[in-house]
Amino acid sequence: MAGHVAIVGATGAVGQEFLRVLDRRKFPLEKVTFLASSRSAGKTVEFRGGRHTIEELTDKSFDGVDVALFSAGGGISKQFAPLAVAAGATVVDNSSAFRMDADTPLVVPEVNGEDVGGHNGIVANPNCSTIIMVVPVWPLHKQNRIRRMVVSTYQAASGAGRLAMLELEQQSRDVLAGRQAEPKVFPHVIAFNLFCHDSQVGADGYNVEETKMVGETRKMFHDPEIQITATCVRIPVMRAHSEAINLTFERPISEREVREILAEAPGVRVVDDRQANHFPMPLEASGIDEVLVGRIRQDISQPDGCGIDMFVSGDQLLKGAALNAVQIAELLDKS
Amino acid sequence: MAGHVAIVGATGAVGQEFLRVLDRRKFPLEKVTFLASSRSAGKTVEFRGGRHTIEELTDKSFDGVDVALFSAGGGISKQFAPLAVAAGATVVDNSSAFRMDADTPLVVPEVNGEDVGGHNGIVANPNCSTIIMVVPVWPLHKQNRIRRMVVSTYQAASGAGRLAMLELEQQSRDVLAGRQAEPKVFPHVIAFNLFCHDSQVGADGYNVEETKMVGETRKMFHDPEIQITATCVRIPVMRAHSEAINLTFERPISEREVREILAEAPGVRVVDDRQANHFPMPLEASGIDEVLVGRIRQDISQPDGCGIDMFVSGDQLLKGAALNAVQIAELLDKS
Repeated sequence: MAGHVAIVGATGAVGQEFLRVLDRRKFPLEKVTFLASSRSAGKTVEFRGGRHTIEELTDKSFDGVDVALFSAGGGISKQFAPLAVAAGATVVDNSSAFRMDADTPLVVPEVNGEDVGGHNGIVANPNCSTIIMVVPVWPLHKQNRIRRMVVSTYQAASGAGRLAMLELEQQSRDVLAGRQAEPKVFPHVIAFNLFCHDSQVGADGYNVEETKMVGETRKMFHDPEIQITATCVRIPVMRAHSEAINLTFERPISEREVREILAEAPGVRVVDDRQANHFPMPLEASGIDEVLVGRIRQDISQPDGCGIDMFVSGDQLLKGAALNAVQIAELLDKS
Repeated sequence: MAGHVAIVGATGAVGQEFLRVLDRRKFPLEKVTFLASSRSAGKTVEFRGGRHTIEELTDKSFDGVDVALFSAGGGISKQFAPLAVAAGATVVDNSSAFRMDADTPLVVPEVNGEDVGGHNGIVANPNCSTIIMVVPVWPLHKQNRIRRMVVSTYQAASGAGRLAMLELEQQSRDVLAGRQAEPKVFPHVIAFNLFCHDSQVGADGYNVEETKMVGETRKMFHDPEIQITATCVRIPVMRAHSEAINLTFERPISEREVREILAEAPGVRVVDDRQANHFPMPLEASGIDEVLVGRIRQDISQPDGCGIDMFVSGDQLLKGAALNAVQIAELLDKS
């Protein structure tokens, strides 16, 4: 079915990963159309050993397209995804534009792959921090309902795109050379610093990133009652997000049980060597498909035995974005 | 009283801060003796415009010393602090050697300054992550007992000493130049990476840093029942620690109440501008005495109104170490 694939935002950090993931997963492709804004049109991208010219995204871009993978920001998705659907394509959208719409499935295949069935032309890819959290948390929740989660994130520059990654690099050079680091993409210096996530802060004090983690998890878990609080923080790391996750289950759960569940969980790799002090790290999570999980331990602050602490790292550009979107496209192809 | 001060570990990152803090706080000094291991003996340090020679730390180093500030590791403290006490000095010890001893007060002046009174020659300075957490948490706990805390740390390289800071710098240069980063001080690469705190992990899965945060807070709060879980993480930041802190109070507490308490709290500066997305950051916390506190918000995951989330940054070398130790010495001088 998925013969003709369009990549919207082909020059971006996620767009580039789309191409690599489609290639190595041998996604059934007859034709690929590379789309971007007029600014990038005419540039070329590499794919399967050839160089391909990027076309400007227009109303006519989706004629004959079967699957369109969007990663060019919410505004572009809002404008062009409905046009792609009207032209007969199915859209997998990496932006937040449609995620919380009641008639748009929001999908992490390991969590709620069956939800793709209900789509009306668009399937939404969740926020990167949400994906990296739910992959290891869902298999636990299935066995013993989680009542409450407290999450703190350690988010990479890649989440803000290619220019943000370059900014981290440039600022680091500047600081090491004794020059002033100048924030352009981010609102604050990122080199040798951190700051709370640079999304808008609402009246309740939560920023948009945190609000996404709460709402998207509830939607995918089909559990509007699960209580979640998150603190989202950007740190000077290039491309993998990490998260400290504290869980409160409905019934007591042992560390051993959690280990057994996670050892079998799809998309998860347990990295938890206490002796060697070797746990999930962004450098080791970068470039791999699985979410790394470690520091699995009974939460000593919950003496009723219902608490578990853990720490995860996952590639923000892969499972947090491109890989998950391609996995959704694969589900669509099979359905 | 504090006429003759000895600095043990004068060449270290904390030792250097001791000197700067003593100077700018106009600590009553008649004489300063600079002590370090034989490796550093003979080197010179700058203090109050002069260069001073470092003497080798020996059994005889404390003759005539009134106050000895130790920051040279737990082994040195265990060996030499009792000798300093025997020679008539009062020791303020920055290591973990005596912190949990029943007859050694563990003190953050803003929290339990009155505890210095009970010393037997040694007053212990808490772990840096603990200090930075308790300064803003204690004034809240006093008003409305905290039942449970979930803390995730974002710890700077400085916590592992001067060589660790140099390692972060060198590794960053290496990575930017396309060279392999080589961990020597830390067990893992710190440049553009993070890793769980490099202290020993116990049978319960908590590392020593996390265990310190739990035990030391209970001791200083005189509240052995307060429930705390911590996840301690090193990130590529030079010298200020940050922490995401989730609190559960015994009774409902409003965000406004928390703001009012923190606005008056000693050692705290509220940095919480939602409009400008300006919250505590290590770069702004570095070099200042106060712990920055922001992201103050009602925890939406606790619908009973008993939860508060906040984010703090504090200079690890100042309030997390040298400043707190000098404040203890000032209390001793007054008592």
